[in-house]
Amino acid sequence: MHYPNFSFTYTSTSTKHRGRRGHIRTPHGAIETPAFIFCATKAAIKAATIKQVKEAGTQIILSNTYHLMLQPGSSLVKKLGGLHKFCGWDGPMLTDSGGFQIFSLGYGSVADEIKGARRFNQRQSAVKISEEGALFKSYTDGKKHLLTPEKSIQVQRDLGPDLVVVFDECTPFHVSKEYTASSMRMSHRWALRSMTEFDRHNDGAQALYGIVQGGVYEDLRKESIDFINDQDFFGIAVGGSLGASKEQMYEVVQMVMPKLTPNRPVHLLGIGGIRDIFSGVRQGIDTFDCVHPTRIARHGGALVKKGEKEHINLMNAQFKDDPNPIEEGCPCEACQTYSRGYIHHLLKAKEILALQLITLHNITYMNRLMAAIRVALETDTLDEEEKRWLNDQEASQDL
Amino acid sequence: MHYPNFSFTYTSTSTKHRGRRGHIRTPHGAIETPAFIFCATKAAIKAATIKQVKEAGTQIILSNTYHLMLQPGSSLVKKLGGLHKFCGWDGPMLTDSGGFQIFSLGYGSVADEIKGARRFNQRQSAVKISEEGALFKSYTDGKKHLLTPEKSIQVQRDLGPDLVVVFDECTPFHVSKEYTASSMRMSHRWALRSMTEFDRHNDGAQALYGIVQGGVYEDLRKESIDFINDQDFFGIAVGGSLGASKEQMYEVVQMVMPKLTPNRPVHLLGIGGIRDIFSGVRQGIDTFDCVHPTRIARHGGALVKKGEKEHINLMNAQFKDDPNPIEEGCPCEACQTYSRGYIHHLLKAKEILALQLITLHNITYMNRLMAAIRVALETDTLDEEEKRWLNDQEASQDL
Repeated sequence: MHYPNFSFTYTSTSTKHRGRRGHIRTPHGAIETPAFIFCATKAAIKAATIKQVKEAGTQIILSNTYHLMLQPGSSLVKKLGGLHKFCGWDGPMLTDSGGFQIFSLGYGSVADEIKGARRFNQRQSAVKISEEGALFKSYTDGKKHLLTPEKSIQVQRDLGPDLVVVFDECTPFHVSKEYTASSMRMSHRWALRSMTEFDRHNDGAQALYGIVQGGVYEDLRKESIDFINDQDFFGIAVGGSLGASKEQMYEVVQMVMPKLTPNRPVHLLGIGGIRDIFSGVRQGIDTFDCVHPTRIARHGGALVKKGEKEHINLMNAQFKDDPNPIEEGCPCEACQTYSRGYIHHLLKAKEILALQLITLHNITYMNRLMAAIRVALETDTLDEEEKRWLNDQEASQDL
Repeated sequence: MHYPNFSFTYTSTSTKHRGRRGHIRTPHGAIETPAFIFCATKAAIKAATIKQVKEAGTQIILSNTYHLMLQPGSSLVKKLGGLHKFCGWDGPMLTDSGGFQIFSLGYGSVADEIKGARRFNQRQSAVKISEEGALFKSYTDGKKHLLTPEKSIQVQRDLGPDLVVVFDECTPFHVSKEYTASSMRMSHRWALRSMTEFDRHNDGAQALYGIVQGGVYEDLRKESIDFINDQDFFGIAVGGSLGASKEQMYEVVQMVMPKLTPNRPVHLLGIGGIRDIFSGVRQGIDTFDCVHPTRIARHGGALVKKGEKEHINLMNAQFKDDPNPIEEGCPCEACQTYSRGYIHHLLKAKEILALQLITLHNITYMNRLMAAIRVALETDTLDEEEKRWLNDQEASQDL
């Protein structure tokens, strides 16, 4: 038994979709699913204290192995008591394997919202991939580092989160099917090496996620699912290239989900749009993560229900003298205390407080969204719930 | 009676110094003095939400007329309910007159900690001073604005704080005594015009502070004190140039304080060092303000007791693996949750959260300092209390 201190249970009652209401038990408490995982990339949610993050109803956060191994280094985090103590978070925590950042920084500049939808430029790549692992240059000082499956697991062990992820090559979208296939098979071998390294020191404190690869190709996805289903991973992440558009991402998720062994929590890597979450939930996705809610906050973007878009930009002059809160009825400090006009002023005046307030609101918003989705799954009212959050005209159809 | 909704009472028991323990009543609650006033320059304490500011024990904050009249404009603040509602602060609030910023931006770039200790360069000056007022260029768009005593009071009325201040020329240090004298007399005339404008619409919601001028010259200070004592200001601010060094500032305060009419609260403008506060308290100063505690926070400076300096800089490599909180026993979220090593990491990683945490700590620190000083005044133990905060070797003597 790999995971004595972890469990996953769920109920699925709808005849209209595959959505499920679940419960992940970890050594640092439970995660009610579907849940959103907020990105504390460098062991900090940008612009929010951990107390604020908690008070906003957050269940789980994640940090990035890539960033933390380079600065301050995983041994320092271990020395200071591990990630939980380091960043003051006593709830469940996840780290990724470092793969996504290495390859997205190697293949291009900024990761797209739809992962993999960037051009693969081998010449520009600062990453050298071999069977052994990935050789890359540090973003902090340019020094070369070799990250292997073993090293990734060792770093994640030092960091000490509850949920850890196998090391993989995050294949970009614009490569051939042949490249995607051989990359997938190498990622499978890396997954086995990750598991072996995980087993060497498994003390029950962590649980390992495998990653389904295969790009947008149904036969490759099936091959990857067969492989992952056969291994004793605690959870499964849907990764690799999810295509070049939202529609393609929905299709990939739809082709993957029915084939996954159902007794494991499934995480959809890097997806955090409101419509995308409803779509993923319908397919049975249990957890999501994305920098989106906190990143747009730092550019003035505040999540709102039933708008033309999923957020409003408070930098816009129309909010200059708006006496209303970001969203009526929202219990966050930003909405309880301040007007849109005030936050607009803060943005114009380049006051950090603007980013803090919108971040607080967006975290609260995502947690309220997920809580509402959980209730809707219990009562089989997901369609109605979706209409409360998204514009009627555009509300997504069951896929 | 100018100020029906305001009062000031105090007790002074020590035979060793002039320190006093007081109570200022305002329409938005009481201020126990001595108190520190935190700078919410643009209607926001930089890097702290108003809830955090309040939970840190803050009694009163101030905003700057100069900044707010230019952006977003006082009429907008008024339209959105006034400063209190605008920034979510329901306690006492003060605005300055705009004078200090206009003249410090005109005379030089950044205001020194000891106000006035900058070179006066008439050629560089972007300010034209006449009997009518000060003509200056906006820092936001370069447009010219004329600020007069009347306009300053009108703007402060629109903003709506409890305590407002007369418009003055903040005379720099490196000017002749003659300039200082004529500037002082013009500021006296401006003070009378401020009072007249204040009286025109006084509805009891605000109380007016006069400012003692006169630079470092004892005869001019005496002339200014005689003038201020004769007017019905609610409170008195010690302003103008306070010299080129801390010693000179202490001297100016020492020459002013015994001559002021004792029944009014006295504010020392722009002073916020720990040693300076103890020195000021001994002279009978009731309130202080300074950007120092929140500004150094944004550069990694955390206030600590009995250090070599009054703060440590958490950017320093020595804190890299320091598992201790900024200060043992401090109840702030930063000290209760995080290590110095973590905050060092955040600073290195350029995470906004570092600034939030150190700001929280420094605000808490200043409020705990002032609370301890108030108790020490009640128990006549100010010397002993000072030794708890400052290095023994350097603890200041009674002036």
